[in-house]
Amino acid sequence: MGGTQHPEASAPPPGSPDRFAEDPAFAVHEGGKLVVRPTRSIDSLADLALTYTPGVARVSSAIAAEPGLARRFTWASRVVAVVSDGTAVLGLGDIGPAAALPVMEGKACLFSEFSGLSSVPVVLSTTDVDTIVETVAAIAPSFGGINLEDISAPRCFEIEERLRERLDIPVMHDDQHGTAIVVLAALRNAARVVGRELGDLRVVVAGAGAAGIACTKILLEAGIGDIAVADSRGVLHLGRDDLTPIKRWVAENTNRAGYAGTMTGALEGADVYLGLSGGSVPESAIATMAGDCIVFSLANPIPEVDPEMAGRYAAVVATGRSGEPNQINNVLAFPGIFRGAIDAGATAITEEMKLAAATAIADVVGDDVRADYVVPSPLDRRVAAAVAAAVASCAREQGVTR
Amino acid sequence: MGGTQHPEASAPPPGSPDRFAEDPAFAVHEGGKLVVRPTRSIDSLADLALTYTPGVARVSSAIAAEPGLARRFTWASRVVAVVSDGTAVLGLGDIGPAAALPVMEGKACLFSEFSGLSSVPVVLSTTDVDTIVETVAAIAPSFGGINLEDISAPRCFEIEERLRERLDIPVMHDDQHGTAIVVLAALRNAARVVGRELGDLRVVVAGAGAAGIACTKILLEAGIGDIAVADSRGVLHLGRDDLTPIKRWVAENTNRAGYAGTMTGALEGADVYLGLSGGSVPESAIATMAGDCIVFSLANPIPEVDPEMAGRYAAVVATGRSGEPNQINNVLAFPGIFRGAIDAGATAITEEMKLAAATAIADVVGDDVRADYVVPSPLDRRVAAAVAAAVASCAREQGVTR
Repeated sequence: MGGTQHPEASAPPPGSPDRFAEDPAFAVHEGGKLVVRPTRSIDSLADLALTYTPGVARVSSAIAAEPGLARRFTWASRVVAVVSDGTAVLGLGDIGPAAALPVMEGKACLFSEFSGLSSVPVVLSTTDVDTIVETVAAIAPSFGGINLEDISAPRCFEIEERLRERLDIPVMHDDQHGTAIVVLAALRNAARVVGRELGDLRVVVAGAGAAGIACTKILLEAGIGDIAVADSRGVLHLGRDDLTPIKRWVAENTNRAGYAGTMTGALEGADVYLGLSGGSVPESAIATMAGDCIVFSLANPIPEVDPEMAGRYAAVVATGRSGEPNQINNVLAFPGIFRGAIDAGATAITEEMKLAAATAIADVVGDDVRADYVVPSPLDRRVAAAVAAAVASCAREQGVTR
Repeated sequence: MGGTQHPEASAPPPGSPDRFAEDPAFAVHEGGKLVVRPTRSIDSLADLALTYTPGVARVSSAIAAEPGLARRFTWASRVVAVVSDGTAVLGLGDIGPAAALPVMEGKACLFSEFSGLSSVPVVLSTTDVDTIVETVAAIAPSFGGINLEDISAPRCFEIEERLRERLDIPVMHDDQHGTAIVVLAALRNAARVVGRELGDLRVVVAGAGAAGIACTKILLEAGIGDIAVADSRGVLHLGRDDLTPIKRWVAENTNRAGYAGTMTGALEGADVYLGLSGGSVPESAIATMAGDCIVFSLANPIPEVDPEMAGRYAAVVATGRSGEPNQINNVLAFPGIFRGAIDAGATAITEEMKLAAATAIADVVGDDVRADYVVPSPLDRRVAAAVAAAVASCAREQGVTR
């Protein structure tokens, strides 16, 4: 008992065959990937009387009289909930809360490793929007931030919006904004590589789910020239009668030419392909893009555009794949964003804070930028610190702090 | 508090006065008392690819296909949520979720220290019974057990009952059952000290809140002779027209003589006083108790009966006070109970498991029992292990395991 070991009861008994023994991913997950521990050990009755009763009553009384003291004397402002209903987990789709949990534990590990924040996975037995909003609002006093994760579109938009309105702590749906921030950082540096301004680029976004919508928004905010956004039925335009409210908003704010064709048709002469959809794009379509084009093909583990083929046409290629150059990985964004927001006592994560994060990520690459180095490595420890500093500074400048 | 502090440095800046500097309880709480950390560090892209994408997708897929694997490959079955709405915190009453959090963090520290389980405080922004039940049910897939804490009566009874019916993981309101289990353990040993059988004892329970009701139930299950339970209006009896459903149940199952007077009146000739109410009991009432009587006066920090005075009449005296002999402290029960239930894969915590826990606590004292040693020290590391073994064994015998 005590110590840090987990109960061992659930592993197969010694001597019996284990069908998971050959895959090291299962070994890493044995017993789970997280542990909660006290910051100070309890070795004496004096320790017990300070950590728990009667000493704790004085701290509780002080917070009851002056609620702002909770930020100093509890862990709530140092812990981020990673909340998922398991409906859009990686490329696996709606696999439910139990199967989503390893992903949320992994996210919590990354929060700890890269930001020093504690993080607790909260997987939900409901997919109802109202119930999710009420549940997260009910548990919110326990946490300093809410990272929404792997919740399917379009429910994710409403859930995030309602929680942002309701809570005075940072709330961010990482599949939207984490991806968008890293994409913008990479595109800033890719534009430098090909000697172009963001405002001159024409971008095709393939995919109008959580990530596609958020990327489109941040690219518009960053002043990108023109964007065509496509879902599975083709490019979004105002002549379509099948648009959800958010897709209608996109159609109103993109696609200046009113192009009404397919995604591959829109690629003709385009400067940037941003793949967030899965599926496969034929070489014949990539071949029609402008010279010195940029291909970000982020479906994982199988990119929409084969990177080797893309390399024959594009000046810069990025994927979501681990271990390859230019990996677009959310871990470059979310640890520093929440850490910066929490450091500053921010009550929200604003658009300006997201743009500041993207610039900070791009700036870590700095003058070392090259075609195969437009974003830092996911393991680059400088990134979270730089992002946190930029986000905290932005929050203070905006005055969105408590 | 300004908006500039760092999470690890939220104390006042150097040189400025700190009004909390003189109380070591505040120093122990600086920055919170808990931290979440990965069980394995992430030092390479290979680590990242196993802990997070793409490796985690194989684990999630396996659990989606076979949900029982979550027990082995996630932390959910090793982590207990400590859930409170902050309505009945220690002796402080309804102080709300933020002020309750230090107590819940302390509880989580004790879970870790004494059982090796991880534990996460969940404080709620609602006090509505339906909302609490829906919230806990919604987050339940994240946890292996639910420890309800410091929720006021009678709401605590309904919340616990509905969650026990709804969830297939252990749910226990510790203020009820943790206290009851330790009281029974102490009373078993106190009866040995005075050479009496439990079935011969007449007990007066002062207090019909969460702890008083639960103690009454477990004492009845343990075969105590007769009990009179009193609330602030006197002893519960069937002639009263002001009884809640749970108090009516108590009146139906206690007070054989139908005594209709005050608590102090009921003490005349009683063998045991069990104080769970606060307030003060006069010496003249204690003086009327039977010879070799037993006084457990558990209001904290000020017992209802002054222990020194009680010692002039009683053969055994116990309090809830830290650092004194015979401290009735829930930490003797809850870590081992949840650890045993979780080790066995129990789907509930049954009455039999609670009785087994009480016997295990009493047995740690064993033949060393004396008037000033009827329960082990709260720091006795043997206790949680003994309780866990007894509870797990009981769960397996009852077949309430998954």
